[in-house]
Amino acid sequence: MPIKISHQFDAGAIDVLRADDPSAIELNIRKDSHADITQWFFFRVQGARETSLTMRFLNAGQTAYPDGWNEYEAVASYDRETWFRVPTSFDGQVMTIDHTPTHDSVYYAYFEPYSWERHLALLDSAQLSPLVQLEDLGSTIDGRDLNMLVIGNPAAEKKVWVIARQHPGETMAEWFVEGMVEALLDPANPFGRQCLTEAEFYVVPNMNPDGSVRGNLRTNAAGANLNREWMTPTMARSPEVFLVREKMHEVGCDLFLDVHGDEGLPYVFVAGSESLPGFTAEQAAAQQKFISDFKIASPDFQDEHGYGATPFTAETLTMGSPYVTHAFGCLSLTLEMPFKDNANDPDPEAGWSGARSAELGKSILQPVLQALRAQ
Amino acid sequence: MPIKISHQFDAGAIDVLRADDPSAIELNIRKDSHADITQWFFFRVQGARETSLTMRFLNAGQTAYPDGWNEYEAVASYDRETWFRVPTSFDGQVMTIDHTPTHDSVYYAYFEPYSWERHLALLDSAQLSPLVQLEDLGSTIDGRDLNMLVIGNPAAEKKVWVIARQHPGETMAEWFVEGMVEALLDPANPFGRQCLTEAEFYVVPNMNPDGSVRGNLRTNAAGANLNREWMTPTMARSPEVFLVREKMHEVGCDLFLDVHGDEGLPYVFVAGSESLPGFTAEQAAAQQKFISDFKIASPDFQDEHGYGATPFTAETLTMGSPYVTHAFGCLSLTLEMPFKDNANDPDPEAGWSGARSAELGKSILQPVLQALRAQ
Amino acid sequence: MPIKISHQFDAGAIDVLRADDPSAIELNIRKDSHADITQWFFFRVQGARETSLTMRFLNAGQTAYPDGWNEYEAVASYDRETWFRVPTSFDGQVMTIDHTPTHDSVYYAYFEPYSWERHLALLDSAQLSPLVQLEDLGSTIDGRDLNMLVIGNPAAEKKVWVIARQHPGETMAEWFVEGMVEALLDPANPFGRQCLTEAEFYVVPNMNPDGSVRGNLRTNAAGANLNREWMTPTMARSPEVFLVREKMHEVGCDLFLDVHGDEGLPYVFVAGSESLPGFTAEQAAAQQKFISDFKIASPDFQDEHGYGATPFTAETLTMGSPYVTHAFGCLSLTLEMPFKDNANDPDPEAGWSGARSAELGKSILQPVLQALRAQ
Amino acid sequence: MPIKISHQFDAGAIDVLRADDPSAIELNIRKDSHADITQWFFFRVQGARETSLTMRFLNAGQTAYPDGWNEYEAVASYDRETWFRVPTSFDGQVMTIDHTPTHDSVYYAYFEPYSWERHLALLDSAQLSPLVQLEDLGSTIDGRDLNMLVIGNPAAEKKVWVIARQHPGETMAEWFVEGMVEALLDPANPFGRQCLTEAEFYVVPNMNPDGSVRGNLRTNAAGANLNREWMTPTMARSPEVFLVREKMHEVGCDLFLDVHGDEGLPYVFVAGSESLPGFTAEQAAAQQKFISDFKIASPDFQDEHGYGATPFTAETLTMGSPYVTHAFGCLSLTLEMPFKDNANDPDPEAGWSGARSAELGKSILQPVLQALRAQ
Ligand SMILES: [Ca+2]
Ligand SMILES: [Ca+2]
Ligand SMILES: [Ca+2]
Ligand SMILES: [Ca+2]
Repeated sequence: MPIKISHQFDAGAIDVLRADDPSAIELNIRKDSHADITQWFFFRVQGARETSLTMRFLNAGQTAYPDGWNEYEAVASYDRETWFRVPTSFDGQVMTIDHTPTHDSVYYAYFEPYSWERHLALLDSAQLSPLVQLEDLGSTIDGRDLNMLVIGNPAAEKKVWVIARQHPGETMAEWFVEGMVEALLDPANPFGRQCLTEAEFYVVPNMNPDGSVRGNLRTNAAGANLNREWMTPTMARSPEVFLVREKMHEVGCDLFLDVHGDEGLPYVFVAGSESLPGFTAEQAAAQQKFISDFKIASPDFQDEHGYGATPFTAETLTMGSPYVTHAFGCLSLTLEMPFKDNANDPDPEAGWSGARSAELGKSILQPVLQALRAQ
Repeated sequence: MPIKISHQFDAGAIDVLRADDPSAIELNIRKDSHADITQWFFFRVQGARETSLTMRFLNAGQTAYPDGWNEYEAVASYDRETWFRVPTSFDGQVMTIDHTPTHDSVYYAYFEPYSWERHLALLDSAQLSPLVQLEDLGSTIDGRDLNMLVIGNPAAEKKVWVIARQHPGETMAEWFVEGMVEALLDPANPFGRQCLTEAEFYVVPNMNPDGSVRGNLRTNAAGANLNREWMTPTMARSPEVFLVREKMHEVGCDLFLDVHGDEGLPYVFVAGSESLPGFTAEQAAAQQKFISDFKIASPDFQDEHGYGATPFTAETLTMGSPYVTHAFGCLSLTLEMPFKDNANDPDPEAGWSGARSAELGKSILQPVLQALRAQ
Repeated sequence: MPIKISHQFDAGAIDVLRADDPSAIELNIRKDSHADITQWFFFRVQGARETSLTMRFLNAGQTAYPDGWNEYEAVASYDRETWFRVPTSFDGQVMTIDHTPTHDSVYYAYFEPYSWERHLALLDSAQLSPLVQLEDLGSTIDGRDLNMLVIGNPAAEKKVWVIARQHPGETMAEWFVEGMVEALLDPANPFGRQCLTEAEFYVVPNMNPDGSVRGNLRTNAAGANLNREWMTPTMARSPEVFLVREKMHEVGCDLFLDVHGDEGLPYVFVAGSESLPGFTAEQAAAQQKFISDFKIASPDFQDEHGYGATPFTAETLTMGSPYVTHAFGCLSLTLEMPFKDNANDPDPEAGWSGARSAELGKSILQPVLQALRAQ
Repeated sequence: MPIKISHQFDAGAIDVLRADDPSAIELNIRKDSHADITQWFFFRVQGARETSLTMRFLNAGQTAYPDGWNEYEAVASYDRETWFRVPTSFDGQVMTIDHTPTHDSVYYAYFEPYSWERHLALLDSAQLSPLVQLEDLGSTIDGRDLNMLVIGNPAAEKKVWVIARQHPGETMAEWFVEGMVEALLDPANPFGRQCLTEAEFYVVPNMNPDGSVRGNLRTNAAGANLNREWMTPTMARSPEVFLVREKMHEVGCDLFLDVHGDEGLPYVFVAGSESLPGFTAEQAAAQQKFISDFKIASPDFQDEHGYGATPFTAETLTMGSPYVTHAFGCLSLTLEMPFKDNANDPDPEAGWSGARSAELGKSILQPVLQALRAQ
């Protein structure tokens, strides 16, 4: 059987230039469906058991984050449950994966995928808990449900918002949410128990359903980068932000986390709202306390490496986390996890992974609880 | 929150006429994507926790099998794992479901769905066994992989073919295959062990990937009823049959099972090839022996109720199972399971189900083994 | 660390003569606690990771069934979940296991053990089903509960009794019962469904609790071979039989299965009641029908190899299965599974196993159902 | 069926005075096997489905910790997996449980048991990890294996010792260890990953095998309270301490945790070594830092309630944790969890539980890592 490369499944994305010779497969990373963004890939190779594959991604140098391919290793899986890193190199233009699969069918991806079916299963199992209300905020452009889990004490004054996957290819964000929700609902987890006493949690596990299923890195079905839509979202172009923002203004917000992945930096870090004019000393202190607490809560989190100082521009308030600080005055952070590995504690086998993202999601309840109590 | 009805997910299908009043919801069953067939439905209702729903399917009387709604109860689930029957009635024109969901989100379907993700997971886990080769036969019109599991003894002369879901909405067929494959690969199952010694199995768990994802009852992405394509399949209209038929002619076939669901009859039964001109006494005996053995192997199988005598017509050889008898001279059967329940042993809670289909799939190895040994 | 051999755990049994040299370990198989029966062994070896062990069982030639060591391979496990066969030889006097463990701790046993904790867990999970009543019949000499599961239709006239592990070291008997109970309680299993309609099942998963925990092959805490106690059981010597027999006479019995393991024969077979004076042609026919049906239900069962004709003696009626035919006139069989392997379908890795025993337990519902319907 | 109360199983312990009337059952809590200590109970009641039980423990006022019965609720289970609290009262002399079981068999215990089989399974599964060495330290008086898991970096200078269940009835201690070991071996847990880089862990999950199986609260098979044996342990009276202490002196110790349960206080707390003459300011600071870190790591831990200042006496150095500070100069703590509930965050359903103990075991890696890095 000859090599076959396919991608017609949830989040599948690749352009095949040639696959006639296993040692000289040529691919292009595909654009987001309606935007000029190329970075996410996810495809299946069949017919290569015990065959040495050399897969060259010719346009890697022209993708959205070419630096993302430095020190990067792609993930692979035979069963889409266990994902492992495979030898990957980048010469500044072409990224190359060299791998010899041991089974008939193998999947390669930019990062461990999180499927729409798993998303629905997360909602399904959460709603069985008496602590959870499953709410529908509206529909996406493609007609998918934009769902939110409301968890905890409805009488609590404090409202904590956690949203994930504004950028749909940043699947680690939903793995993070899955871990966090599990901890919140685990009666043996003291952080979960106490967080749910102190606050009500509004959790949007997937802000970008259409982009997720389409296999986009950054954009929704209209080509919008949702994290640039927070000032003037519209139902036509960015219903996901429009609907969530509307609900936030309805119920209020005392703490906001926007969960992301970063293509370049091999670290977990947060970006805060310090560039905002009028960012107060008190706000800065709360932000700094969260960072300090989070460092204790998880050795995977650090604050040495990050985006650094970014000047306030017209774009700043179009982004979720600065917008929320601006609009609600509360602690508001963008959390970034790596596509690569955590360079402070590398795992040659799995790199940064879904499981590590979930564990980080559990650990965030610790700084969240501290922040709720400090308020 | 008002009632919301949605269907933008794997196999989702419904037309909503009005959903403003929970007690007077009006729906139409949607057509297959490119054919005038209406029967399959699968949708999600949100916002109806502890609300009494009355859902009227106005066009039920005009669907492909109106008789399918007599004595029929729809299935529902809160987590898409446990499915249960809900009160359903049919007045000859309108089918009505009356149900009060106990959770925020509930799914209703014609029968327990079998998703494309689960299909891929079935392939994934099977291929991890050293007894299995996972083969790609080609691609569907929508670009999905048409996969086949080759299981067992490559040196065995006997080739057993099992195909399922030519009609994609007959999901019980893939549940059946899942159970059968599990039994084949279970080292503690003596039928599995011995079947794999006697024969090599060619299993196509899903003959109609595109129709399955699109939420069609009967047809593929070109509107073709695959079980009328076996004489003259083409890559343009029925690549699924074309590719499987080609492979069958390449490797041969000694026993063929085509697994289906039947909309009308509340029984498990088979349809044989007796209407074929030239059907020999020997063939009739082999067919009768299989039926007798199967009755012993599973009390869920019976031969009292079925399609009865059907005259040979021009159409006969366009169907998989008669075609195979005609082309290969071997035992070849169409297996039908109910959408309703097994009237001989009804289960008011689950009706006929995925689990019962899987159990039937395990039990078929018994008559298969007998047939292999009798040859 | 030197080699350490220990056996102070559920069913642990061995006598260590010397263990100073891994290549010359000398053991004796230990006697049953109060009887002159030696055959069962179960022990743990520590300190031998990657060390070649030669373990000689010096008294194998004097055990109860020396022939049991011919063509026999012992079972081993690192986690007591996965058991595998290890190279074992017998020279007529000494049995020798040669094995190099790959972990720090390894268990060796005569057959895959079935612990008292697992027994309790079987009762625990069964009683959660609304179909089950868990009854206590009384206490053993050591004070353990003698439990029975009553499953099915209390209104059914037919009473089916299944007892296991009269001989406690024949653990395959309780694996068998576990599989059978699972099938009875599985709503998707048509044999389970219909058996429970036709009859009420009285299942004693472990007839010999004390012998099981003590690590005996054949006898209880008083040294009694329970399968020689059925004519005159007493609370002092054989309360297990006394209590079960009393209950049988109270509720009646229409079909009886006594589940065992056989040390010598590498086959699954039954012993019937044909040696009984007055065994009628009708009884013989029912027995023969069960055997024929069982052969179809499981390729692991056969009737070519077995105990052969055994003359009626004074001892005959002291055994469970003949006693029951004698007392109740009903179909009554002793079922035997091998300690070795099924020579008709050997599995070099696992041999005959707990899992295969459980599968056989599921398959027996088929001949049982036929027998119930034939009566 | 009349009420039957039994206790012949792992850790079973009760004296039944009368059980003829469900509304007036009279029990005595049984003594430890060779010591005058009464507190632990674990028994099974059969025949009381839907029957209101009143069980009076007549000697509760004379047990080792009568105060333990104030504000105490016993645990019960139908399947020994899910344990729940049942209404329990104490009048200063008699403790009374009032409960109506909903199944045929129900277990009652002082606290959620941790069986010897589960202990062996913990060792089994841990040893499958390449990060683990499973060591045998020697044998107990009853002949059980005293096992230790050695986990992590053999090259690391720092040696962390964690021991549990010196007092065998304090089963929460082994639940704690199970959680801690799981976290240590979870590649996605950053504390586990980093702890294993910084140190080598010596974990004794069960210091008192014989007392555990015998159903003792405090003592081993010789009647010794192991936590009073650390100055002069002997192989005759306290081999468990003798062997562990010997190994500690062989490999060294840089941090020591001795895990316990406390009968009286409804809190999680530690007891330190501050009563030791010559306890340095540096030692006090390290101890205080651990306490502060642990409070952050788990809201279930607190330092407001505890044993308070205890004067140094002759007995002090006979206890594990002071002895270790004395002998090794290192940070050494006795960790106590409640039998009752955590009064700071009560769970009416489960109270303090095995699952919460395990979660606490995971969280301790955080202060341990801080302590390792501070040294
Ligand atoms: Ca991002
Ligand atoms: Ca059909
Ligand atoms: Ca026997
Ligand atoms: Ca204690």
